[in-house]
Amino acid sequence: MKAPAPFVAKERVLMGPGPSDVPSQVLRAQGAPTIGHLDPEFLRCMDECRAMIRAVYGTENTMTLPISGTGSAGMETLFANLLEPGDAALICTHGVFGGRMAEVARRQGAEVVEVKAPWGQPLDPEKVAAAGAGRRFRVLALVHAETSTGVLQDLAPFRAIADEHGALLVADCVTSFAGVPIELDRHGVDAAYSGTQKCLSAPPGLAPISLSERAMERVRAREHEVRSWYLDLRLLARYWGDERAYHHTAPVNAIFGLHEALRLVLTEGLEARYERHARLSGELQAGLRGLGLELPVAETHRLPPLTLVGIPDGKDDKQVRRHLLDRYGLEIGGGLGDFAGKAWRIGLMGASCTPRHIALCLSALEDALS
Amino acid sequence: MKAPAPFVAKERVLMGPGPSDVPSQVLRAQGAPTIGHLDPEFLRCMDECRAMIRAVYGTENTMTLPISGTGSAGMETLFANLLEPGDAALICTHGVFGGRMAEVARRQGAEVVEVKAPWGQPLDPEKVAAAGAGRRFRVLALVHAETSTGVLQDLAPFRAIADEHGALLVADCVTSFAGVPIELDRHGVDAAYSGTQKCLSAPPGLAPISLSERAMERVRAREHEVRSWYLDLRLLARYWGDERAYHHTAPVNAIFGLHEALRLVLTEGLEARYERHARLSGELQAGLRGLGLELPVAETHRLPPLTLVGIPDGKDDKQVRRHLLDRYGLEIGGGLGDFAGKAWRIGLMGASCTPRHIALCLSALEDALS
Repeated sequence: MKAPAPFVAKERVLMGPGPSDVPSQVLRAQGAPTIGHLDPEFLRCMDECRAMIRAVYGTENTMTLPISGTGSAGMETLFANLLEPGDAALICTHGVFGGRMAEVARRQGAEVVEVKAPWGQPLDPEKVAAAGAGRRFRVLALVHAETSTGVLQDLAPFRAIADEHGALLVADCVTSFAGVPIELDRHGVDAAYSGTQKCLSAPPGLAPISLSERAMERVRAREHEVRSWYLDLRLLARYWGDERAYHHTAPVNAIFGLHEALRLVLTEGLEARYERHARLSGELQAGLRGLGLELPVAETHRLPPLTLVGIPDGKDDKQVRRHLLDRYGLEIGGGLGDFAGKAWRIGLMGASCTPRHIALCLSALEDALS
Repeated sequence: MKAPAPFVAKERVLMGPGPSDVPSQVLRAQGAPTIGHLDPEFLRCMDECRAMIRAVYGTENTMTLPISGTGSAGMETLFANLLEPGDAALICTHGVFGGRMAEVARRQGAEVVEVKAPWGQPLDPEKVAAAGAGRRFRVLALVHAETSTGVLQDLAPFRAIADEHGALLVADCVTSFAGVPIELDRHGVDAAYSGTQKCLSAPPGLAPISLSERAMERVRAREHEVRSWYLDLRLLARYWGDERAYHHTAPVNAIFGLHEALRLVLTEGLEARYERHARLSGELQAGLRGLGLELPVAETHRLPPLTLVGIPDGKDDKQVRRHLLDRYGLEIGGGLGDFAGKAWRIGLMGASCTPRHIALCLSALEDALS
């Protein structure tokens, strides 16, 4: 076979549900020469990444590391390690990613009870409590920031509900990590996962996870081996912990990029970053309403990094998005599930959360809809 | 938490069992701005990668793609999809990675029969045939290039043996991909996996896999769902195939790097690349013998990209490797399993397979051993 030409993509501005624009510093950092996965230099990089992930999650959890896969691999890691065949799991679903959690949990052999809320709305904690009344569950799982609908879920009420069921509390933080406050320890969340390609603005490919000591006790007390060798936390702990035992070859360059992306987050400051996302998403939403567009999610539950926008009657979803992409190089997201063809998803995440992005998006949308 | 300083590693030359030195073109390619995982531009990149992976594997298999995880995730993908609980698997073990295949297969609920050969030696096909005599197996798995011992296994005799057992033939090609000829179709291999960080000289993080139509029929005929959602080939086929259905967010930048690394392989030419690895490994081995060092693997079975070197009596494994790393920035590998503390592993892989690398390695080793 003849080699194709080098791959060069057209220029893009990323305002979909992820990936977001990656800062040049992060691209440069991940382009440093590859070094060995057991090199003392790399071990130092790993340790600094772990400390920074803890800071963003708001946790002291020892078991905090980036899984060598995307956000969905982070999700699978938690369910594969926390659930055994026959365990019961109470899973809250009001979008694609709640549904994915239920699916992943079932494949671990768990008995899944789903609590559903309408897409575009948050969960009612009382309904969650009622759904599992009188039963014990190994895990109560919910989505902090539902990427398919742009709904932010308040984590505060769920520790008490999990306690009633004797359950570990698991949260999907894929679209909240480094964009809105999480505070795992304050909310008593036992296990959380995220991805690198949303508010963190690193390339996709890693999944920062964190588990409490209580969650790790559960993992260590398992009766059956974890079905996944690649995602087995007891093995991963031996590589990421003091033992430094070889497990798999870590994605070294991706972790260089992660290090720089986390560093940029802490350099900006968590509070300043959250304030930026909240303030600019308000500006975007005001501008979208100014174009006569509807925002299906109630203001109180809107997720700053991701805004759901109703597609106006008579406008063609794909035609509009294709116009934005072809004329402006601007990517926004289509709807998923209940919102497929009915809504767009506009991301303001990390390095894609700037006044420049908002101005482009509003102008380009105005043109595309005219 | 205060942000740490940007991470800057000391300079290294990588001559361990992987990762290998990554060419600057590949580092630059993976540093291109991130684009969306459903962007038409990215789909073009995906298609070109698939075609190039097929060329390197020597196959026409439609089901050929890079898994979003390291080589071990590629291994897990094959066993998770090809095996169901209760299936029997005949697994050949003469090093760490055969043992890992057995472990991964067991975790899928398979009944594993292991055929063992001494570490540092190839398998005897007759013993493999005898071990499974009169039984049916779902899978016969072996390691083409055993990274823990530097043994190259001839694949030719195993199709006939697999046929006797009604088994699919699975091969670990982690250290052979793009370094020694594989020819999946010619040898009738049904499924193979590799990593990006060895003879391909891309950063670690992806696992090129390929499955025959017969293997995919097995996957489609499964009674039980695949235990891993992340690695479920029926779902991945919908994203990498014509349907382009969202599954997970692909590691976009890593795939940019993969594209360039594959392109460099085809630009050099497969035959020229194999000849370079064979010729230069001969030079390295002659040089090592010139230093009075022993090569435990018989010449007929030596894997060109990875040479096992006996540690001379009285020399301290870690002290020598530390000297090489501290004084020369040179990484070579320690021994694993039966060879831990007894042998080093010296890689000549991809961009690390040059006369410059050999000269440095021999000079530095001579100093370290003097």
